[in-house]
Amino acid sequence: MRMLLFLGSILYVCLTHAEQSLLGFDAESAAIQLQLEQRFDEGLSQADQDAWLRELSAKPHHVGSEAGQVVAQTISKWLSSWGYDTTIETYQILLPTPKVRKLDLIEPELIVAGLTEEALPEDPSTAAREGLLAPYNAFSADGSAEGELVFINYGRPEDHELLARYGISLEGKIAIAKYGKSWRGIKPKLAAEKGAVATIIYSDPADDGYGRGDVYPHGAYKHASAVQRGSVMDMPVYPGDVLTPGQPAIAGTERLAMEDVATITKIPVLPVSYQDALPLLKAMGGSVVPQEWVGGLPITYHLGPGPARVRLTLEFNWDRVPAYNVIARWPGNQYPEEWVIRGNHHDGWNHGAADPLSGLVALLAEAKAVASLIREGYQPSRTIIYAAWDAEEPGLIGSTEWVEHHAEKLSKQAVAYINTDGNSRGFLNAGGSHSLEKFVDEIAAVVDDPQTGVSVKARLKARLAISEPAPSEEDAERDGLRLYPLGSGSDYTPFLQHLGIASLNLGFGGEGSGGSYHTLYDTYQHYTRFRDPGLAYGSTLAKVAGRATLRLANAPQLPFEFTHLVDNISGYVDELEILADTLRKQTARSNALVSTGQFALALDPDKALKAPVIRAEVPFINFTPLKNALLQLQAASTRLEQANGSYPQAQMGRLNKLLYQSERLLTRDHGLPDRSWYRHHIYAPGLTTGYGVKTIPGVREAIEIRDFDTAEEQILIAAAVLDDLSAHLNVIADLAQVE
Amino acid sequence: MRMLLFLGSILYVCLTHAEQSLLGFDAESAAIQLQLEQRFDEGLSQADQDAWLRELSAKPHHVGSEAGQVVAQTISKWLSSWGYDTTIETYQILLPTPKVRKLDLIEPELIVAGLTEEALPEDPSTAAREGLLAPYNAFSADGSAEGELVFINYGRPEDHELLARYGISLEGKIAIAKYGKSWRGIKPKLAAEKGAVATIIYSDPADDGYGRGDVYPHGAYKHASAVQRGSVMDMPVYPGDVLTPGQPAIAGTERLAMEDVATITKIPVLPVSYQDALPLLKAMGGSVVPQEWVGGLPITYHLGPGPARVRLTLEFNWDRVPAYNVIARWPGNQYPEEWVIRGNHHDGWNHGAADPLSGLVALLAEAKAVASLIREGYQPSRTIIYAAWDAEEPGLIGSTEWVEHHAEKLSKQAVAYINTDGNSRGFLNAGGSHSLEKFVDEIAAVVDDPQTGVSVKARLKARLAISEPAPSEEDAERDGLRLYPLGSGSDYTPFLQHLGIASLNLGFGGEGSGGSYHTLYDTYQHYTRFRDPGLAYGSTLAKVAGRATLRLANAPQLPFEFTHLVDNISGYVDELEILADTLRKQTARSNALVSTGQFALALDPDKALKAPVIRAEVPFINFTPLKNALLQLQAASTRLEQANGSYPQAQMGRLNKLLYQSERLLTRDHGLPDRSWYRHHIYAPGLTTGYGVKTIPGVREAIEIRDFDTAEEQILIAAAVLDDLSAHLNVIADLAQVE
Repeated sequence: MRMLLFLGSILYVCLTHAEQSLLGFDAESAAIQLQLEQRFDEGLSQADQDAWLRELSAKPHHVGSEAGQVVAQTISKWLSSWGYDTTIETYQILLPTPKVRKLDLIEPELIVAGLTEEALPEDPSTAAREGLLAPYNAFSADGSAEGELVFINYGRPEDHELLARYGISLEGKIAIAKYGKSWRGIKPKLAAEKGAVATIIYSDPADDGYGRGDVYPHGAYKHASAVQRGSVMDMPVYPGDVLTPGQPAIAGTERLAMEDVATITKIPVLPVSYQDALPLLKAMGGSVVPQEWVGGLPITYHLGPGPARVRLTLEFNWDRVPAYNVIARWPGNQYPEEWVIRGNHHDGWNHGAADPLSGLVALLAEAKAVASLIREGYQPSRTIIYAAWDAEEPGLIGSTEWVEHHAEKLSKQAVAYINTDGNSRGFLNAGGSHSLEKFVDEIAAVVDDPQTGVSVKARLKARLAISEPAPSEEDAERDGLRLYPLGSGSDYTPFLQHLGIASLNLGFGGEGSGGSYHTLYDTYQHYTRFRDPGLAYGSTLAKVAGRATLRLANAPQLPFEFTHLVDNISGYVDELEILADTLRKQTARSNALVSTGQFALALDPDKALKAPVIRAEVPFINFTPLKNALLQLQAASTRLEQANGSYPQAQMGRLNKLLYQSERLLTRDHGLPDRSWYRHHIYAPGLTTGYGVKTIPGVREAIEIRDFDTAEEQILIAAAVLDDLSAHLNVIADLAQVE
Repeated sequence: MRMLLFLGSILYVCLTHAEQSLLGFDAESAAIQLQLEQRFDEGLSQADQDAWLRELSAKPHHVGSEAGQVVAQTISKWLSSWGYDTTIETYQILLPTPKVRKLDLIEPELIVAGLTEEALPEDPSTAAREGLLAPYNAFSADGSAEGELVFINYGRPEDHELLARYGISLEGKIAIAKYGKSWRGIKPKLAAEKGAVATIIYSDPADDGYGRGDVYPHGAYKHASAVQRGSVMDMPVYPGDVLTPGQPAIAGTERLAMEDVATITKIPVLPVSYQDALPLLKAMGGSVVPQEWVGGLPITYHLGPGPARVRLTLEFNWDRVPAYNVIARWPGNQYPEEWVIRGNHHDGWNHGAADPLSGLVALLAEAKAVASLIREGYQPSRTIIYAAWDAEEPGLIGSTEWVEHHAEKLSKQAVAYINTDGNSRGFLNAGGSHSLEKFVDEIAAVVDDPQTGVSVKARLKARLAISEPAPSEEDAERDGLRLYPLGSGSDYTPFLQHLGIASLNLGFGGEGSGGSYHTLYDTYQHYTRFRDPGLAYGSTLAKVAGRATLRLANAPQLPFEFTHLVDNISGYVDELEILADTLRKQTARSNALVSTGQFALALDPDKALKAPVIRAEVPFINFTPLKNALLQLQAASTRLEQANGSYPQAQMGRLNKLLYQSERLLTRDHGLPDRSWYRHHIYAPGLTTGYGVKTIPGVREAIEIRDFDTAEEQILIAAAVLDDLSAHLNVIADLAQVE
């Protein structure tokens, strides 16, 4: 019995392998592709990745640094040596670096903040301080400010609403905010809107210091002196070189005057460690913070304002520096004008082992393995482009300038963009255009998780299965993985959200630990001890991203599929309706509680916290146009699915072009309200949340800011976008041979 | 227009006052009662309470201390001087006090714990150290233990389940637990069951130290050296003198041998401050604790075991000491054999300003005001007994011995017991027998909140109205307040849960702040600064509890009412069904996830946390008997309600007796499983949760421990109990005159 079962299993495995169908491939080409992938996997080397990681992370290699240039040249040299047609495309971008950073507590006593990350004997990388970039927030305004401190929690819109209920104004004050929960650039932006004259951002130990685990070098978490650097450029308005929005930062492009730049903060902003934040927070008075605002420092947190008073002085070198994008091509032998682009940035804040090199070495391993295949006779049908971007950290600048530079060609020729960035041990994180969801699902089902031996899809599904609260029955029964929708935070943004190029963002994570992000401690040693020892997940990422690249490059029919897209958009529309309903009910309830006096009665009369203000009631919003457009799209995607397999060979070229162009239909030249650079009407980063995605952003953000007239207008635009896509899908389906 | 509105308001007020009906009173007697209450209010003095609080809290006055005896004598003297027939009833009880307390960290380095609360110059009470009772847990076992530390979070059953998933055994180890979330006595009890050789309990600053607010003396919260004392006697088995379960601790009662006592902990247990806990926790290793277990100390919390090793040595003086209950009576002039009992304990761990004196001075204010009324000619219909209990802190001992002593008379004669204990600024907290719910609701509607001028009921309803998540529509629309069901933790337990005497527990709180509970810092100064400045809520409590006492003493028809009881019990039965259903679904889901390997796949293979074990599936449980009994009870209570107003005058004596005896029907002589002292089958403290209530405890706890056979048996018992009450209510209704 046992033997029979065992034989049965073998048979089953053989059958599944033999039967495996690949989206976009017929039986014959699928078999060839699967063989190719087998050989591709064999070409991936963890040892290579480990060696590259060690070499590239040896020195701080931020954009504009000598070491950064060396990193670009090294990558270029390697790619070139493997046979790629490699160039370095250079852009002249504006980059602020710190000149003066001074932070003093001046009341009730003078304490001068150290603002320095400690060298640790246990990690020699942290001792070599040549070329180190001091902790700062890129694109903070220059300036000096003095004022009482106000604690603003994470500095989100809801935090400011609560502060208002305490009667606390930020006018003329210096805001101190915790890192986390929202993108860092939002914190000074909203604080400035409320009148703050400066913002300090610190990493609370509850969020990624000792409250999460042992601190470096004993463990992976944030050292008391560690500071998260990072850009505060207002990327949700536009990313890239601040002087050349929408245009490449090359000779001949007219630069904005500094005073016309919309994406530099209005006030000085400085990131500090929890060691430096402690005396500031300890000296504060005023109301004790709400319980949910309490952090991990051994003090009572107070809202202020004051009596703690600080003086902050920041000056930056506003230099024009070269950003070096390494671009390596292998031309396709059938559709050379169709480009499959695979990218990862190479600049780090300092050593940048995890961010970005862990993703970059996976990309290099892919490129090297593909080159081996080519040497053995393989030729991709479409052109493959490997890109190593510079200047991602200060604001996605390298990729954005390149995309803006080659916008016309990319719009016509880019099939898809596959991005990676920092990688780590754990579960597959796959986000992107939902027309590629089924495609990614197929890949995830055949790549093995190195720790457990099951597929990375099976492991992801297991995590979903045990999640609390239990997944809905629908989610539990759904076989396919879901791509998360893309906000921002890495180089896919210009491709997807500016040009409407279908994009993926791939990575692993959830089991590598640490608070090294953007600190001095993001080193080779930290990475290989705590995030992906042996780079096993580096190879796993290469298998996933490599398959995505190779299948897109080789598929006779491009693997775009639209029923999953409809399924996801349908979910977003449901969310929007629930959002509006919830807001309506919450507003009505809150208004009733306030106007009847119940709210005031329930609060402690001895405390500063008061009832909220009365808000305008939320009207019913007409979602019908969007829902009807969705019905049409559903019909079109079903029709397209049925048409599959019936396309005449002669139409394949046109078919593929229409398929990869479909994502373009989701954009509008006029872009989103108040930010025309963002043209995609399904995915965008949040204007007041930063990296976090807003799906159907025109509608969603209008509801969130209670601008219901705009919401209605944006519903019409989103509906028109979906209608255009429906029409486009029908045009594709028309190519099919009628039986 | 404004004037008209104003006149209208006056008219409305007059009408409501004139029309106000009182449960148990006819129009004429109600008018007299309301006048009486008006005069009663005028007799209450905040200044008296303040002076008494200052005097009684001047010295540590724990049971067995000289100062404790003086406090009892002082109270007795006052009550006597106001005209009450006052006696001190004395019991000889076993009381351990600390002789040796030594706690040393011995690995990785020697650190000797201070175990001493600091004197603070800002609060002179804390400097007078004569007669101070050092921090300890009463009824800890004597002994010395040495072992590695294991961190057990709050030491609840679910914490032990999670530790087991980490593969951590407590065998031979010393458990360190946080105070809070469960009653302290449960922590060493469960740890001992798991093999621990000792338990240390500390107050984490996240729970009531600097994580909640400024610490004493700057603010109200727990000083770094403060220690919560408290009993760890296994009160959920039986409270009172450990040597005389069920019997009074008087001469002639046979005492148990020490080795036969079930309610002393099996292992030594010591409470410590967060200052003393810090080096122990800091020295621990092993897995980092789950995120929800992290506390407020500036360290990474680890589970252990070890490498921190501690030695704990505890020796106690096991003395027999006198407990002095002060009992003051005023005989009723119509039903002298019917007793309305109003009590609050007088012993404190040290100064005991909040606990218990803030409640006691309210009781004294009531007694003094009632005495004034009596001097002016008022005579209660029923006998009023004011009781000031001794030895509540070590285990409800004074009240329990008195109840056991007078059990026979109390069973026959006690109408109700009204308890108070520590009091503070804020909202009415009213718990108790649901046959008194409507009665309390009427009182809460006419006593004003001193801060806002609305009734304490209106203020409580406002708090419910703004609560998040929003209350259910049913709860939002329910006019009447709900009594919370009583678990344990104060002196109502022997009355309610041993004898089945309808009881109330009344107090205010939620706006007084602080972590002074059971520490050296529970002083007059702390109380009057942070908990109830001016004792405004002392008088408010006196108004509520005084009305309850006076109405019960005077009502021509006792104000018991059963539709509210049915409504609440019906809710508990719903909860039980949901509990069983949820447990069945959770067990099935967890078993499926474990047996398919999904659970293991989703966990980090590098971490110690493993999947849970497979549990026996949960069967369907037959709740029908309970639900049918509830139907009968509903019918009986409705019939009783309709009978109201139709009782012949001649039957009033019998009617009242049957009414107050009704609560007795909810008890059974055989008590609850494994704890026969607890006879009430609707309310009990949890056997593994301590103070926290378990409603319909026989059934609920059997389900919780997955003993489904017992659950079915207990459903039959609970159903029989309800059936008996139904029959009893029908007997009462039969007394009504048929029209």
